[in-house]
Amino acid sequence: MDTVYLDNNATTKVDPKVFEAMIPYFCENYGNPSSIYESAHVSHCAVEKSRETICEFYSASSPKEIIFTSCGTESANLAIRGTLHNTSKKHIITTKVEHPCVLNTYKDLEEMGYKADYIGVDENGELNLDELKSLVNQDTALVSIMAANNETGAIYPYEEAAEIVKSINPETKVFVDAVQAAGKIKLDVKNTKVDFMGISGHKFHAPKGIGAIYIKEGTNIAPVLTGGHQERALRAGTENVPYIVGLAKAAELAMNYLPYESTNVKALRDKLENGILSTVKNAKLNSRTKNRVPNTTNIGFEYVEGELILLHLDELGICASSGSACTSGSLEPSHVLRAMKTPFTSLHGSIRFSLSRFNTEDEIDYVLKNIPELMKKLAKISPFQKELSQILEI
Amino acid sequence: MDTVYLDNNATTKVDPKVFEAMIPYFCENYGNPSSIYESAHVSHCAVEKSRETICEFYSASSPKEIIFTSCGTESANLAIRGTLHNTSKKHIITTKVEHPCVLNTYKDLEEMGYKADYIGVDENGELNLDELKSLVNQDTALVSIMAANNETGAIYPYEEAAEIVKSINPETKVFVDAVQAAGKIKLDVKNTKVDFMGISGHKFHAPKGIGAIYIKEGTNIAPVLTGGHQERALRAGTENVPYIVGLAKAAELAMNYLPYESTNVKALRDKLENGILSTVKNAKLNSRTKNRVPNTTNIGFEYVEGELILLHLDELGICASSGSACTSGSLEPSHVLRAMKTPFTSLHGSIRFSLSRFNTEDEIDYVLKNIPELMKKLAKISPFQKELSQILEI
Repeated sequence: MDTVYLDNNATTKVDPKVFEAMIPYFCENYGNPSSIYESAHVSHCAVEKSRETICEFYSASSPKEIIFTSCGTESANLAIRGTLHNTSKKHIITTKVEHPCVLNTYKDLEEMGYKADYIGVDENGELNLDELKSLVNQDTALVSIMAANNETGAIYPYEEAAEIVKSINPETKVFVDAVQAAGKIKLDVKNTKVDFMGISGHKFHAPKGIGAIYIKEGTNIAPVLTGGHQERALRAGTENVPYIVGLAKAAELAMNYLPYESTNVKALRDKLENGILSTVKNAKLNSRTKNRVPNTTNIGFEYVEGELILLHLDELGICASSGSACTSGSLEPSHVLRAMKTPFTSLHGSIRFSLSRFNTEDEIDYVLKNIPELMKKLAKISPFQKELSQILEI
Repeated sequence: MDTVYLDNNATTKVDPKVFEAMIPYFCENYGNPSSIYESAHVSHCAVEKSRETICEFYSASSPKEIIFTSCGTESANLAIRGTLHNTSKKHIITTKVEHPCVLNTYKDLEEMGYKADYIGVDENGELNLDELKSLVNQDTALVSIMAANNETGAIYPYEEAAEIVKSINPETKVFVDAVQAAGKIKLDVKNTKVDFMGISGHKFHAPKGIGAIYIKEGTNIAPVLTGGHQERALRAGTENVPYIVGLAKAAELAMNYLPYESTNVKALRDKLENGILSTVKNAKLNSRTKNRVPNTTNIGFEYVEGELILLHLDELGICASSGSACTSGSLEPSHVLRAMKTPFTSLHGSIRFSLSRFNTEDEIDYVLKNIPELMKKLAKISPFQKELSQILEI
């Protein structure tokens, strides 16, 4: 058995079909889309055709609403900083469970004098919309809410949140970080009151280093990266033509695979989750069972240390994660699980498994065959023998 | 004869060796460099090995001084905005001939309340260092000077400029946009007083969508894109591993090819330039003959319209440019040539030819064979028959 890659919320394999679509734009059709000769026109057309596909992927109203960026982080920074650049309002709201690209940007803004509020979640990871309602006011410039959580897979009711925000202050802008939703559930932005929505290619089998942002037509926003006229002067810099083509191909494939995600990928995820929960006595589900993206499960192994589990899984050739790759290197337990008030007994031993359409039943069987024994081994060396003995009946 | 691509200052063909180096990082070694399992360690090592190569490319002191970005525009924005974020000083200086990524960023900053000064150039494109000397003061936060001009190829004495700036105000930061110098002339940043230097991969046969910035160790700078811990928190976002590997491979090749650039590419450029100047009577050299990158020539065709020339060159399969691709679409004549006080007679008919190591002597011969006849044809339809008749002795 090769590596079993169950960390698709961290990054994904580039689909070979995506790679194939990009190839002609490296060494052959390499013209600058802004140049006027015929051979550069090929690049220009490739970018605009891709914009149409991404428009469809978002279910946006017009390709004009799509701007290509270098990643999800850039999309978030553009929405947040670009909105605040053009207003004197100083109040901003987000959730406690956002990705660092939103949370750290908000922290930076707080240091610059903005007033930030952070909405909490309950033990299931459900967003507190009443809290949102009570926080929006006439000085609120922006509300950022993620579409799906990277660690738990929880889907947030961002459409409803946007309705609430706009009903209180129609001028408040709403940004949705849809990085973990894109390719897993259908996006339908035109039927919402959302102003901005960001996606990242490498979470759905395009390469790392390409993203996009939906900007509702007529929305007032300033660029973060200024320079040339590219992307209607909202994102300067020569267009990354191969990756833009790759993003579009990945989006096209993702649209085709959506039914497969919600049936086959979900079935594998459920098999993995149920298998672990039924065979490992100190395993507890952190993710909610309902309203979750189909590929993600987050399981807490009580009284065992997460990094230790990951290292042993790695030895078995199984790739998983103890939180966001963007926060790894820090020994702090997950801010998402803490916001959910996950008990400390399982907080430190929480593992995220995130699947993709490339995973097979054989791989899941392999994981299920090996995990119970591994967890028994790790339980034996845990310093919490007394507590574990009660759970495991050792 | 296929297309003769003479617009390498706009963008370049990805070197097939660069493409080959990137391939394994799309569908095989696709791990997130921040993940802790073995297969992701491969990505991490690829990024760090690339950083060492780019350090060597810059002649920097330490790989820690290298940050990967998505393009030259991002590098410029990071240096400029990142410096100003951490100081209360409000005075900034640049030149009148910078790329839009600097000029438009400065314009944006002026709107935000910064005081900007723009240094001029003489008719040869030579920078006025006395003007720089007279402008730097105790409130000067930043000076931006390009290493080589994209339109004329003129090399600017940025090392000397940095010495001048630091001698007046050691706290003033110096950013050098080296996008058009990288791969054409040797960079040797550690022997200068430069604080930041930006490069862009697609100007030297890496793909569009990858850049880097040198940040002198110990320099105080804030990120523009905030989020995860990547690039020592100076550039958040999952690392574009394939392109980072590609940038390093392109840099390695560029270092090897530097002697070839200054001999063979220069010889072809000189042949093209001399050939046109000796056979086309209304052609005048806009670029200076000395202190130029070896691949660039900028020639003004008096009393003929530049876009018209480009369209006819395109019909002959010759790709060239009338200015920066980043300013194309605008009918304004080049801000660089205007700053050089290029006479209006040739300003509108100025064409940039920029070569690369992929050009051949056959291609140059083809261009030289076709240009005189084309220019005669265009002269015949010029509205300036009287003026042209004197030059052409028609």
